[in-house]
Amino acid sequence: MRIFGRHFRTIWRGDDGGVHIIDQTRLPFAFEIAVLNSVEQAAHAIRSMMVRGAPLIGATAAYGIALAMRADATDDSLARAATLLRKTRPTAVNLAWALDQMVAALSPCPPGDRADRAFSRAAEICDADVAQCESIGRHGLAVFEKRFGEKGGKGTLNVLTHCNAGWLACVDWGTALAPIYKAHDAGLPVHVWVDETRPRNQGASLTAYELGAHGVPHTIIADNTGGHLMQRGQVDIAIVGSDRTTSRGDVCNKVGTYLKALAAFDTKVPFYVALPSTTIDWSMSDGAAIPIEERDARELSHIIGRTETGALETVAIYPPESAALNIGFDVTPARLVTGLITERGTCPASRDGLLALFPEHARAAA
Amino acid sequence: MRIFGRHFRTIWRGDDGGVHIIDQTRLPFAFEIAVLNSVEQAAHAIRSMMVRGAPLIGATAAYGIALAMRADATDDSLARAATLLRKTRPTAVNLAWALDQMVAALSPCPPGDRADRAFSRAAEICDADVAQCESIGRHGLAVFEKRFGEKGGKGTLNVLTHCNAGWLACVDWGTALAPIYKAHDAGLPVHVWVDETRPRNQGASLTAYELGAHGVPHTIIADNTGGHLMQRGQVDIAIVGSDRTTSRGDVCNKVGTYLKALAAFDTKVPFYVALPSTTIDWSMSDGAAIPIEERDARELSHIIGRTETGALETVAIYPPESAALNIGFDVTPARLVTGLITERGTCPASRDGLLALFPEHARAAA
Repeated sequence: MRIFGRHFRTIWRGDDGGVHIIDQTRLPFAFEIAVLNSVEQAAHAIRSMMVRGAPLIGATAAYGIALAMRADATDDSLARAATLLRKTRPTAVNLAWALDQMVAALSPCPPGDRADRAFSRAAEICDADVAQCESIGRHGLAVFEKRFGEKGGKGTLNVLTHCNAGWLACVDWGTALAPIYKAHDAGLPVHVWVDETRPRNQGASLTAYELGAHGVPHTIIADNTGGHLMQRGQVDIAIVGSDRTTSRGDVCNKVGTYLKALAAFDTKVPFYVALPSTTIDWSMSDGAAIPIEERDARELSHIIGRTETGALETVAIYPPESAALNIGFDVTPARLVTGLITERGTCPASRDGLLALFPEHARAAA
Repeated sequence: MRIFGRHFRTIWRGDDGGVHIIDQTRLPFAFEIAVLNSVEQAAHAIRSMMVRGAPLIGATAAYGIALAMRADATDDSLARAATLLRKTRPTAVNLAWALDQMVAALSPCPPGDRADRAFSRAAEICDADVAQCESIGRHGLAVFEKRFGEKGGKGTLNVLTHCNAGWLACVDWGTALAPIYKAHDAGLPVHVWVDETRPRNQGASLTAYELGAHGVPHTIIADNTGGHLMQRGQVDIAIVGSDRTTSRGDVCNKVGTYLKALAAFDTKVPFYVALPSTTIDWSMSDGAAIPIEERDARELSHIIGRTETGALETVAIYPPESAALNIGFDVTPARLVTGLITERGTCPASRDGLLALFPEHARAAA
């Protein structure tokens, strides 16, 4: 996508041989490129959320394996790298998916070929993600156009989104934001309510930044506000991404998604989830079984911002004596989801719905 | 209540004749007393949220009238003061209630007696609020004890609250927090999940501060998190305050309350609202008719905190190009509320429920 006119992906191999990423912990204050030269650096980038978003975590893990192979292409190194990367984040299923892809591709290779094969397989995973997201964008655009038609094709289509499921969460395009970019580029008058998305503020810091850089009209709101806007009729459709989707359509996504889905259901606002099929965990049916990450409470109690002089400063915003609990995700039951938008089309959030689009998983699906 | 051992109310007349308040915009970083010496200062204190919370807004408005009478006790001054104060905040109904009380008490008085009468009537309003809140505490304690019994009387009673409906929102005790203080003081093992409560963070800044100063165990969570904790069974009861309650039991409270009520309903967690009857708007039935305040977007885009060196600093946390919308309240439909806890007891959130406790309003109730 474009950052004020220049095209970027979120991850790419540089001419220097290193893996280049946008350091997302610096946004929206600074646009900085970081270079990863070892599997340890790749693991750190995922753990510290320099990169985040289920698809991008998978892509970074794939490149992490490639960096490990460049340094040491033995079976032992491959196993160690996969173990190290697998432990970085617990919730997104793309991480395990990408690592399994890499190990399957490299295990049969002679060690001398592994580094090249790893970089090319990682690049394929990235290209496939871009293609999937663009396809999600097209299918989502059809959903948006239908919804805009239902409101008479006049005025603005007001879309609410939570967290960042934009191109910064993927390699390009995004999942939930892909239809928004497609709609905007196609001339559909779209306006986005951006949930701030505490903790870490990925909505205010990343989604607002992306939309602004692409020129899409948007307004940041507190996470508390979306329900009231839905009650008032100021939201036409809600769309979010997914970190893991079960075979029956339960959706694990950034914490707070469940609350917006409840409000959408209560106010009859269509609630869609956009996801590449790499996010589906066919081995799991009940979303309650998904491991939910807890992170450092400091991500709640401290926040980074820009002072009046323009300097970046981290400030403590809680009473120092108070405990805080930082939970990263929640699970939205399939019954609250209007539809799942995948690279193969849109389906009901159900086992039958998913298997109609992905029949090859019928045997594996829990 | 106690601030680290010393007893305070949130508003009192000092020996200097001025009206003393705790400047709540400085909490939790600094405990500072401000002195109001004119109706203009009282209006500013309400508008800028140096004082906030429906009951305390009413008490401050009452003292604002007294300060106006001290300066100029004419009918014209009384009318001007009431008009000025009435415009400060639109949503809480206690403001209008307290002003009506003051005007009714002062209009028949000869101007020479008005200042004294005004200060004593304001003090009565404060004392009445304290008595009401303590009574809410007792009735709420019974609700908590019953709930604790339902979970076998073992372990901890986990209570979730949103925003600040503590003693800082009132004159003393609080509404939603009064039963928590009563329970804690009675030895019931209570732990409070404190919603951070964006924007303005009244949960993290005020509720956590109050509970900490009184020694009540608590944990701050992002506003997004409560639904997930309810899904997991980690919330036994939810309790919030109210800025305006309609005659049929719709509850207008800090934005985001509706989302927590939806989650409580979906997960079968009892959801209570604690309110003094001064918060009931008998003239209104449908909560959708309540005027909802919009405030400066800067309350979202900027935040105050403490730097590593201990200095207070305000930082900008949003991309400067992005618009933001700051809505203060939402309306929770009565159907989602388990019960209303008032100074006269607990009742269903319905017209019949409220009128059983307050039969004197049967004629006026919309």
